[in-house]
Amino acid sequence: MKIIIIGASGTIGKHVALALKHSHEILTAGSKSGDYRLDVRKPGSIKSFFENIGSFDALISTTGSGHFGPLSTLNDANFRIGIDNKMMGQINLVLEGQHFINPNGSFTLSSGVVFDDPVLQAANLSAVNGAIEGFIAAAAIELANGVRINGVSPGVVEDAGHFFPFFPGHIPVKMESVVQAYIKCVLGAATGKIVKVR
Amino acid sequence: MKIIIIGASGTIGKHVALALKHSHEILTAGSKSGDYRLDVRKPGSIKSFFENIGSFDALISTTGSGHFGPLSTLNDANFRIGIDNKMMGQINLVLEGQHFINPNGSFTLSSGVVFDDPVLQAANLSAVNGAIEGFIAAAAIELANGVRINGVSPGVVEDAGHFFPFFPGHIPVKMESVVQAYIKCVLGAATGKIVKVR
Repeated sequence: MKIIIIGASGTIGKHVALALKHSHEILTAGSKSGDYRLDVRKPGSIKSFFENIGSFDALISTTGSGHFGPLSTLNDANFRIGIDNKMMGQINLVLEGQHFINPNGSFTLSSGVVFDDPVLQAANLSAVNGAIEGFIAAAAIELANGVRINGVSPGVVEDAGHFFPFFPGHIPVKMESVVQAYIKCVLGAATGKIVKVR
Repeated sequence: MKIIIIGASGTIGKHVALALKHSHEILTAGSKSGDYRLDVRKPGSIKSFFENIGSFDALISTTGSGHFGPLSTLNDANFRIGIDNKMMGQINLVLEGQHFINPNGSFTLSSGVVFDDPVLQAANLSAVNGAIEGFIAAAAIELANGVRINGVSPGVVEDAGHFFPFFPGHIPVKMESVVQAYIKCVLGAATGKIVKVR
């Protein structure tokens, strides 16, 4: 299977790439590293990327940053950071990628725990993750030719210690569980599903 | 109570305004009608609005359009219609309004059925509604001075016959039930809740 991994140098993405590379053809893409350069904030960059790649069987996105900060300091400008990165970055990967993906292929995007279990200072990502989950549910009933779409919603991951102070009382989840959630989405048969790793 | 209603000339907003006006001071605002003119797509317009109004006790938003169209025709540009209107329009009302609202006041935003029960051609609004619901959950744990925030998620409303063809098998919900959901959010005590009217 020809699998694109966006964000393959990130905390989670590198483990997902490692788990899949022995049995599949992996193409990595990211803003600073990978087989291809890709700025997910720019629709033109995403379109050029797919034109270069041609057809593919699966796309996994583990990309996506947002803005952290107290609600009282949020405004339109810093809220757009998460919209342009994690939200529209991932949604545009699907909107463009749907024209290049092979029949019975799949998209797997990343949501996160703060949608359904919010923490202080993460309202931007709570909204962004909600948008991703709503989009996945809707896209699943419209994608043509047997193409599937799912999402993984990890809790705070054991490898991301710098985030622990923002997640009091959250039990860090095992990286191996998170990796398997992505594999379930790609090699399984579900569509429109959010796999929560908690 | 001094209650601002954004979108008070819309299908739902006008009924909400009617139900509250006998017992409360109502200020209406919209893009084309109402006591005040307000373009929710423009953060500057929202800020000026609050500076004119001064303090208030409750804000109800029944505003918010998005883009309808098949997934295969969606792109960054038409997806931004829902982001700029229903998503950031409503979120910016809270981000700006939090600095003007009285202690123990409340914000009530509008989500919609296509987040959790999607229909064809509404992926933009499914994403936008998800963002609104994620934002409400997160903002509820950060708003200061006892200020509350909730959302109403109506099914397709009996008065909106032009939408029925997009909602096969959906039983239209009574306008009176939708109105009461907004009233529950304003006059009740909940926060972080999505009141689904189905």
